[in-house]
Amino acid sequence: MADMDWPGCAKSLKGVILDMCGVLYDSGEGDGVAIQGSVEAVKKLKTCGLQLRFCTNETQANREKFVAKLGRLGFDISVPEVFSPAPAAVAVLKERGLRPHLLVYDGLLPEFDTVDKTNPNCVVIGDAADKFSYENLNEAFRVLLGLEKPVLLSLGQGRYYKETDGLKLDVGVYMKALEYACDLKAEVIGKPSPMFFQSVLDDMGLQPHEVLMIGDDLVSDVGGAQNCGMKGVQVRTGKYRPSDERHATVTADGTVDNLAQAVDLILNQRN
Amino acid sequence: MADMDWPGCAKSLKGVILDMCGVLYDSGEGDGVAIQGSVEAVKKLKTCGLQLRFCTNETQANREKFVAKLGRLGFDISVPEVFSPAPAAVAVLKERGLRPHLLVYDGLLPEFDTVDKTNPNCVVIGDAADKFSYENLNEAFRVLLGLEKPVLLSLGQGRYYKETDGLKLDVGVYMKALEYACDLKAEVIGKPSPMFFQSVLDDMGLQPHEVLMIGDDLVSDVGGAQNCGMKGVQVRTGKYRPSDERHATVTADGTVDNLAQAVDLILNQRN
Repeated sequence: MADMDWPGCAKSLKGVILDMCGVLYDSGEGDGVAIQGSVEAVKKLKTCGLQLRFCTNETQANREKFVAKLGRLGFDISVPEVFSPAPAAVAVLKERGLRPHLLVYDGLLPEFDTVDKTNPNCVVIGDAADKFSYENLNEAFRVLLGLEKPVLLSLGQGRYYKETDGLKLDVGVYMKALEYACDLKAEVIGKPSPMFFQSVLDDMGLQPHEVLMIGDDLVSDVGGAQNCGMKGVQVRTGKYRPSDERHATVTADGTVDNLAQAVDLILNQRN
Repeated sequence: MADMDWPGCAKSLKGVILDMCGVLYDSGEGDGVAIQGSVEAVKKLKTCGLQLRFCTNETQANREKFVAKLGRLGFDISVPEVFSPAPAAVAVLKERGLRPHLLVYDGLLPEFDTVDKTNPNCVVIGDAADKFSYENLNEAFRVLLGLEKPVLLSLGQGRYYKETDGLKLDVGVYMKALEYACDLKAEVIGKPSPMFFQSVLDDMGLQPHEVLMIGDDLVSDVGGAQNCGMKGVQVRTGKYRPSDERHATVTADGTVDNLAQAVDLILNQRN
C-alpha cells in the first residue's frame, strides 16, 4: 500500500531523479535482473514531459559499460543522463592536485585514466567487492598512514546493497573501517553528498522543490534528496527493509511497492 | 630517553602487567622475533618479588600454542599467567546463552570447543587477518542482520599492529565496519575493557595503585590501565609512533625505549 498524501506534489513536478540499483534492477551474476514493471515505468516517465536523470552510487563499472548493461536489460538510458561518483571524484582530484591510490572495482578504472596516479597522496575507495581483501585494505591503510595529511575520498557511503544471491557490504562499511584505522574523516563523493545532488539539479536547470527523488536507500537516496530540499520517495524493492518505515531520523515523503507504482501515481496526478 | 618522573612509583609496586606483542616480541612469519633485551627483562621481573601477569589481545592462537611459541622465542611463561580475550568471551557466551558465529583465526577455534555454535544468535570477531575476506565479512553481516537483537562481541578493538613485514589492520577496524553496516554497538572483550583488566587484578589479589601496566598501545594498554587506576608506561617498540607522545586524550605515565629499559628503571628504584 502506498501512502496517499505524497503524490499531490506530482502536479507541480518538473523533474524526477531515479536511483538505479534496487529501483530499476537487482544486480547479481551477469547483468542482474530488471525489477518488474521498471522498464515500462522509465518509458512512461520519458514521454510525459518531465526531465529525467539517473543518480547512482554505482562504482563497479564506468558509465559506458553500465549504460550498456542497462540497455541489455531493456532500459533506454544514455550516458549523459547518468550521474555517478567516479567522474565527480576525478574533478575533485584534478582540482586539488591529488594523486590517488585506487581501491576500486577493476571495471571502474577507465574512469580514472586521465588522472596521475604516481606517488599517491590520497586514497580513493569505491565499492570494490571481492577486492576488499585483507591485503588490499592493509595496503590502502599503509598509504594513508604514510601521508602527512591523509586524504580519503569515498565513492558513496552505503552500508549494503542487494544482489540476486543476497545482501552485500557496500563501500561505506570499508570507509568507516579506514576512518577508524587512521583516525580520520573521509570525504564522501556521491549520494548523499549535497554537492552531488546539486550537480544533478544544475544539469536539469531546476530548483529542488520542482524535483522528486525515487530510491530504495532511505538514508542515502531519500534523506539525501530531502536535505537538498527535494521530496524523496522510497520503493519497497532492492535494499528496502520494513524497519525503514519506522527509522529514527529519516521519514520518506512516500513509500511505494515499486517504481511502476510510483510512476502510475505521478502520472495519475498529472492527467 | 625515558621520562625520569615515573619510576618513583616502582618502590611501592606489588605487580606488573605486560602486554606481549610489540613489548616481548614482534610478530611476523613463523614465530616472529623477540625484541632485544625482553627475554632477560622478563627473567629479571620474575626474580625480584613482583607479581607478574601477561595481558594480550592476541587472538590468532589459543593460549597453549601461544605460550609454546613464546617459549621457542626464549620466554619462560606459563598458560595461567596469560590473560587473553577468547576465554573471557567464552565465559560471557555461556553466561548469556549465546551461540556464536565465529569470525576468528583458525588457530583460536580450540578455545571455543566447549561452546554451542548451532543456529547462531550472535557474532564473535577476533583478529582474523586473511580470513577478513569480503565473503566472510558478508556472512557475518548477514547473520547479524537476520537477528532480532543482534549481538556483536569483539575480541579487542585495536586499530593495527606491527608484523615483521609491516603494519596490519587489527580487529577493531572490522568491528567498526560491522557496527556501521548493522547500525549497532559492539561489546568489546579484552583490552581496554575495564572488566578485562579487573579480572587480572583479581587474579593477582592486588589493588590498581599497586600495579603497573607496560604496553606499546597507548590507548588500549596505557589508557585502559589508567582508566582502572593503574599506572601505564609505553614502550617505543611495536606499534609505538612518535605522535603517541602528543596524543590528544591519553598521556602515558612514562615512555621508555623498550621493556629492558623499563625493567632496569623499576629495579633501580627498588634496590
